[in-house]
Amino acid sequence: MIRFDCDYVEGAHPRIVEYLVETNMEQTIGYGEDEHCIHARKKIQKVFACEHADVHFLVGGTQTNLTAIAAVLKPYQGVIAASTGHINVHETGAIEACGHKVLAIPSEDGKITAEQVQEMYDAHWSDESHEHIVQPGMVYISFPTENGTLYSKKELEALSAVCKKCSLPLYIDGARLGYGLTSKANDIAAQEFVKYSDMFYIGGTKVGALMGEALVIVNDAFKKDFRYLIKQKGGMLAKGRLLGIQFEALFEDDLYFEIARHANHLAEKIKAGFLEKGYQMLFDSPTNQQYPIISDEKLKELSEKYAYCYWCRVDENHSAVRICTSWATKEENVAKLLEDI
Amino acid sequence: MIRFDCDYVEGAHPRIVEYLVETNMEQTIGYGEDEHCIHARKKIQKVFACEHADVHFLVGGTQTNLTAIAAVLKPYQGVIAASTGHINVHETGAIEACGHKVLAIPSEDGKITAEQVQEMYDAHWSDESHEHIVQPGMVYISFPTENGTLYSKKELEALSAVCKKCSLPLYIDGARLGYGLTSKANDIAAQEFVKYSDMFYIGGTKVGALMGEALVIVNDAFKKDFRYLIKQKGGMLAKGRLLGIQFEALFEDDLYFEIARHANHLAEKIKAGFLEKGYQMLFDSPTNQQYPIISDEKLKELSEKYAYCYWCRVDENHSAVRICTSWATKEENVAKLLEDI
Amino acid sequence: MIRFDCDYVEGAHPRIVEYLVETNMEQTIGYGEDEHCIHARKKIQKVFACEHADVHFLVGGTQTNLTAIAAVLKPYQGVIAASTGHINVHETGAIEACGHKVLAIPSEDGKITAEQVQEMYDAHWSDESHEHIVQPGMVYISFPTENGTLYSKKELEALSAVCKKCSLPLYIDGARLGYGLTSKANDIAAQEFVKYSDMFYIGGTKVGALMGEALVIVNDAFKKDFRYLIKQKGGMLAKGRLLGIQFEALFEDDLYFEIARHANHLAEKIKAGFLEKGYQMLFDSPTNQQYPIISDEKLKELSEKYAYCYWCRVDENHSAVRICTSWATKEENVAKLLEDI
Amino acid sequence: MIRFDCDYVEGAHPRIVEYLVETNMEQTIGYGEDEHCIHARKKIQKVFACEHADVHFLVGGTQTNLTAIAAVLKPYQGVIAASTGHINVHETGAIEACGHKVLAIPSEDGKITAEQVQEMYDAHWSDESHEHIVQPGMVYISFPTENGTLYSKKELEALSAVCKKCSLPLYIDGARLGYGLTSKANDIAAQEFVKYSDMFYIGGTKVGALMGEALVIVNDAFKKDFRYLIKQKGGMLAKGRLLGIQFEALFEDDLYFEIARHANHLAEKIKAGFLEKGYQMLFDSPTNQQYPIISDEKLKELSEKYAYCYWCRVDENHSAVRICTSWATKEENVAKLLEDI
Repeated sequence: MIRFDCDYVEGAHPRIVEYLVETNMEQTIGYGEDEHCIHARKKIQKVFACEHADVHFLVGGTQTNLTAIAAVLKPYQGVIAASTGHINVHETGAIEACGHKVLAIPSEDGKITAEQVQEMYDAHWSDESHEHIVQPGMVYISFPTENGTLYSKKELEALSAVCKKCSLPLYIDGARLGYGLTSKANDIAAQEFVKYSDMFYIGGTKVGALMGEALVIVNDAFKKDFRYLIKQKGGMLAKGRLLGIQFEALFEDDLYFEIARHANHLAEKIKAGFLEKGYQMLFDSPTNQQYPIISDEKLKELSEKYAYCYWCRVDENHSAVRICTSWATKEENVAKLLEDI
Repeated sequence: MIRFDCDYVEGAHPRIVEYLVETNMEQTIGYGEDEHCIHARKKIQKVFACEHADVHFLVGGTQTNLTAIAAVLKPYQGVIAASTGHINVHETGAIEACGHKVLAIPSEDGKITAEQVQEMYDAHWSDESHEHIVQPGMVYISFPTENGTLYSKKELEALSAVCKKCSLPLYIDGARLGYGLTSKANDIAAQEFVKYSDMFYIGGTKVGALMGEALVIVNDAFKKDFRYLIKQKGGMLAKGRLLGIQFEALFEDDLYFEIARHANHLAEKIKAGFLEKGYQMLFDSPTNQQYPIISDEKLKELSEKYAYCYWCRVDENHSAVRICTSWATKEENVAKLLEDI
Repeated sequence: MIRFDCDYVEGAHPRIVEYLVETNMEQTIGYGEDEHCIHARKKIQKVFACEHADVHFLVGGTQTNLTAIAAVLKPYQGVIAASTGHINVHETGAIEACGHKVLAIPSEDGKITAEQVQEMYDAHWSDESHEHIVQPGMVYISFPTENGTLYSKKELEALSAVCKKCSLPLYIDGARLGYGLTSKANDIAAQEFVKYSDMFYIGGTKVGALMGEALVIVNDAFKKDFRYLIKQKGGMLAKGRLLGIQFEALFEDDLYFEIARHANHLAEKIKAGFLEKGYQMLFDSPTNQQYPIISDEKLKELSEKYAYCYWCRVDENHSAVRICTSWATKEENVAKLLEDI
Repeated sequence: MIRFDCDYVEGAHPRIVEYLVETNMEQTIGYGEDEHCIHARKKIQKVFACEHADVHFLVGGTQTNLTAIAAVLKPYQGVIAASTGHINVHETGAIEACGHKVLAIPSEDGKITAEQVQEMYDAHWSDESHEHIVQPGMVYISFPTENGTLYSKKELEALSAVCKKCSLPLYIDGARLGYGLTSKANDIAAQEFVKYSDMFYIGGTKVGALMGEALVIVNDAFKKDFRYLIKQKGGMLAKGRLLGIQFEALFEDDLYFEIARHANHLAEKIKAGFLEKGYQMLFDSPTNQQYPIISDEKLKELSEKYAYCYWCRVDENHSAVRICTSWATKEENVAKLLEDI
């Protein structure tokens, strides 16, 4: 069985594992204040041109999202997100468990527009009974989205402008940020996230690490006492170095982007291969997640050799599936898959 | 200015006020365990044929909803409701503040169907990642709905059957229950609510009381320790008698239904009047809330003499408004309104 | 049976009831924005010399406490309170249900001192692991306390100074504020609460109203969007006028203080009577709650004629009970009680 | 600088690291359902004689505690714990953030007694106003405690019996369970935890792992849907194998207990050394945490060469500190320390 179902089927990239082995016997202080964390922070601040931002390492994506959002919202506020957003559909109500409504905006491809945000904002404030309605308190987007798609610079700029105008902090879920940044379709530089968002996170789990995400708090308003919240929500590791060491490795010699480029490159091959053979794609994704639409018959056949992630029914005898690549995906396996379709 | 904007513009029905005056100097114990509360409970159990149900008096609708729902759901469960449901749109996220997601089902007229509930249930349990998704834990409907519409007995029966099959407790928000029960379009008896639902509440605030709702807990599973929750959520009055006395009065000599019939009667007149003059109604409501669609010009004119509740824009120069009747609405004011349209 | 068990055994003071009757047929807008609420607010702002404060009417004490505290604290903060404080022991965890720890300070008589607050604050911030500990975020005191005792002006001044120094907003639970203000032992003027506290509430339920408390928000930082929270927590009445009307009556012709003075006067008589006959008091209360220590034998005898609130076991054959007076307590019943002890 | 400040200053035990390296390129499914997790579960079920228990792997101690407690308690219930308990003092209010009060029982040495639990339970249920008070819903103890002390079998038996009698599920925080089980002072077998408790967790982070705890759910009542809660609270790793692999290694060839025995052995040496030289210990700990009382002068001297955890001021010129050992502690460093005191 060759697994293409997600980008977390193997352990960590070998250079991360090596560095963990190498540093294993060092003695460090706990809870994310050790030298490795400090060093990793500095590397991230440099790569993302955010020297004045705070960088925190958290355990996983849901944890990062719920902690970040809980830090921003007032008790009567909600977070605007695409209806397809991870926080709206795949975190078992983590945001609601912190007391906040997810204000879902309909989305086909995983993205929302500046106009939609403006509309939701206006609808709230123009309602005479607005005190009876959850107040929009921030905006959440994913880059890339859960469907592999990307915001263009123009789209992100527009979203960011509306958010600033409406005093809605913009938070970017970058669980797969690397794949977005290194996509051929991308026109936004790593150094620009600090300009467009109030907070964003750099995904580790899905980009080569064992686990771990780096949350970048750009807006001063949300920096104070953030570590209290990480601890309260269960996201602070005693051996915090485990996260620092991994992010040090990821941002040494461009490894983070190298990993992502490798995965994107193979994803493009897969996409091209499917399209060439006349398949259609559910989403036009330029990143490491691809969504071919496959007949039931073919799918049955493929499922004997390949693991994929079932996505949805498309018509009577076709379904869309998700195929993912990662740092560990092998050219030869991609070649086999393309032969078999 | 004649107010038609809601059914709570006056104080309480005179017979309630009289009874409050009459009993004012009695000494009773506190927190809803006095003789008046006991007596009111018995009357309700009789009228609704639910001798084995627990009856609690709470302060208001949002309070009742959040307390009832918090009592039923496990932390990872959500409540299925119409997208237009009061808990989804007009309670400032009260349910989410208790940690639970509202699982909204699209609805045009305020109702949801048995099929929709079954579909949402099936979608959850057939998803391989269902542990990553909020689990449907109960169903919330309003009778009448927020749009004045009613479930037929057949519809409620079907909903109830699906709920039972899927082990989803059914909770009915009866903020305006009286208007529903006495509507000419209604074919469900008061005595049948105990059969179809696990919990329902009999609205007082909007049916003649100063404030107060009577929550009827039918399902034994949710009876235990319920008073702890009422207290914790701030819904337990020291002078709990204030609620008992009002519900005693409401269920003395059929007052509750008399109030509702009066309001429905005038609402029907209003509806007929509007239709006769060629107006369209946004919803086909057989209860005390009516939703005529009115031109901007006419609306401007009317707004000098009448208070209504603005509902929504319908087209370039028409809007829908809500017009409500209550125990206190006067025939002569209805006549004036119909003259002026 | 003559009830002395609490100050909420009867309905409302007759002048409140009369005003409710008188205004019953008026048409007003809902949710606390009607003319009666506006008028009541102005009266309160005048009596408490707080023209710049926001005044909100809420349903009850627990509701007011949880809403006010939820408005002030960040998710990782707790509220400092006496171990005997109402929020710590008699609100079924309402504060915790909003996500916040009550940081209890040991107290014998219901009061806490400026020194204790300073110590708790210092202990937190001097702890190297303070991020692992709930951060003190505000201070809650009751005036009078749950034991009937009062802070002197000097004590309150000191507490207030520490709170300001430590940036800990001070919130005063005035469920029985009237009894405190009119106590012969009191040296703090109504007009001074605005100076010492960031928020306080003026209790209605226990001082003659059917129900209702007036929350005064002094500190600008906590004013914004407060009505959203009232709605979310279920404390906003559709017929909000019910609260406004009652507070209008309470602050017309000094009724609020008249009620309290009457109750205090009779409480003093009771206290003097008990002391004269050689009884001891558990707390030295100068307000409407008295705590005589009574032998089992005597208590049994009294309980045939009088209702009291059992407080606690004192020694092998003595217990303390609470005896309360109110606007409705009659001189003759006090005389009977004193005869019978 | 030689670090004795905690038991998590190094990475993981080499055999764990080796196993991570060895398995790194395997492809597994995510979220804790892979072969390694399954295998690790079986090993734990065998060692702890709990074949019918569910075993879940979570990220850290706070996370495990808050998830387990949230799964057990109803919204109006609290958890009984020692005042010194980790959940009461060192988790930034994680339990309260889930809506529950920690009902603290005074404790000097970190333990609570069966009598204290019975008393708290009785006090609640004998109070006439018990609905106004948080209901005791479960009991939390730590083994070893936060002070290094242990419950004897007799004590645990008594606690367990009271808990069963009062229907209070007993949950044991075993962040350092290995050190307790292998302590010379311990008379409770690993196989007995299933008998005495409803849930307990086997700490990994502080006993040689990079991170991770194994929660054992003994009581059927709390098994259902537990994975939803893990996901919601952010404790479910995409690469769940990371936890499975570590626990497989820990329970291969008795490694878990070997690690603990090593640390306990050196802790005993430290304790003996201090006592021999006339020092006093703050707690009489038979596990890997030792609490010598040291003069300011001496402490200053030691702090130049050794890292310890400052505990508390004892008298004018003495403080207690915590000294910890772990799998990585070297005999030679212990020898140096003992020379220097």
